[in-house]
Amino acid sequence: MNSLEVIPIHGIGEVTPGDEIAVLVADAAAAQDTPLQDRDCVVITQKIVSKAENRLVALDPDDPEARARLIEAEAVRIVRRRGDLVIAETTHGFVCANAGIDLSNVDDGYAALLPVDSDRSAHHIRNALRARYGVDVAIIVSDTFGRPWRLGLTDVAIGVAGIAAVVDLRGTADDRGRILQVTEVAIADEIASAAELVMGKAAAVPAAIVRGLDAAWFVDGSARDLVRNPQEDLFR
Amino acid sequence: MNSLEVIPIHGIGEVTPGDEIAVLVADAAAAQDTPLQDRDCVVITQKIVSKAENRLVALDPDDPEARARLIEAEAVRIVRRRGDLVIAETTHGFVCANAGIDLSNVDDGYAALLPVDSDRSAHHIRNALRARYGVDVAIIVSDTFGRPWRLGLTDVAIGVAGIAAVVDLRGTADDRGRILQVTEVAIADEIASAAELVMGKAAAVPAAIVRGLDAAWFVDGSARDLVRNPQEDLFR
Repeated sequence: MNSLEVIPIHGIGEVTPGDEIAVLVADAAAAQDTPLQDRDCVVITQKIVSKAENRLVALDPDDPEARARLIEAEAVRIVRRRGDLVIAETTHGFVCANAGIDLSNVDDGYAALLPVDSDRSAHHIRNALRARYGVDVAIIVSDTFGRPWRLGLTDVAIGVAGIAAVVDLRGTADDRGRILQVTEVAIADEIASAAELVMGKAAAVPAAIVRGLDAAWFVDGSARDLVRNPQEDLFR
Repeated sequence: MNSLEVIPIHGIGEVTPGDEIAVLVADAAAAQDTPLQDRDCVVITQKIVSKAENRLVALDPDDPEARARLIEAEAVRIVRRRGDLVIAETTHGFVCANAGIDLSNVDDGYAALLPVDSDRSAHHIRNALRARYGVDVAIIVSDTFGRPWRLGLTDVAIGVAGIAAVVDLRGTADDRGRILQVTEVAIADEIASAAELVMGKAAAVPAAIVRGLDAAWFVDGSARDLVRNPQEDLFR
């Protein structure tokens, strides 16, 4: 294994509906002298993907019921509720606060919904980068989720293109020749978390390059591979 | 924000009870021409910390009941059980499979328990590195946990020294001057996940350097800051 580099992409600026994320990211990376390279994994926050895809909906900030109705509309199931906190399952199978609806960094009066299909969003960006810049990169669309049992939020992958979401090392012999028992590693989530470390919540860095990942991981994956089947989930 | 580097530390070799992890890590890092530097965060897997601290217990591999008894002994509470899978709360408050007992990479007939106090283990390593090598680094002891709702394992922090576990960005204005609502980021878990990406389960890389983290994060933290109070936990 070699070293990884995690490079924040500054200068992307405000994203508006219709913007081509691929162009914003590639140009900003080039402008800071870290142009995208083959086998980079580019992590892009849901926030700017949702904006580019015009997933903004009007929301009266003075109407607390409006927020609750929007969450109900986006959720396929409410998993837990306590006071203002709603943990809900989205149509994608993600379980997260507010069914993934994002109120921060959005113009007053608007909320941002999750992309309809973040895998598709990731593929779109990946294909545009290949077509326009001739560069072969993987894309992860990331979002910030809470966890049961553990405090603090971490970034996870909600959309994936050109890279595995989960790497199955089951059956690989460990350094003593024993067969490892459970080693399905959620590398896409770990890559999203690594990228978050250079983003900073208030720093307006909505994308980062993760460079140096294992070449074997660059196969076609899907964020669906990260969704535990509800029937097999002990906590739903 | 600047770039991060995540550097695997190769050549640590087999760890046995009584070994000084600080020496093994510092010497291996120096031998590969990436000596530890001030403000590095060194992530060390629980596996070698437990071995060095002689947290090995005999376990008859042919006695399935022995494993169950050991898990019961290490758990303060069984959170869920299905077939062979036991999700249990440890004395530290961690909720994980098998109460954190590790069967892989251990000599046949032995299991490795979690360190008694991984924060203390981390502080011990940090202090030894300062005393012996004059280097001021943060330490994270990492372990590999599953999650409800999401498939695949990720590495998280179970011990912390010299770095915050959770960074509270609540009340920080975002790029539009709005006050962010919930932005307590579990940076120690994200750092552990970033390090895991260069370790590889079968590659015998039990430690990694994460270099370039925000200088403001190097304050005294604790893995206890990552444990959600059971009374406030909707899933326990």
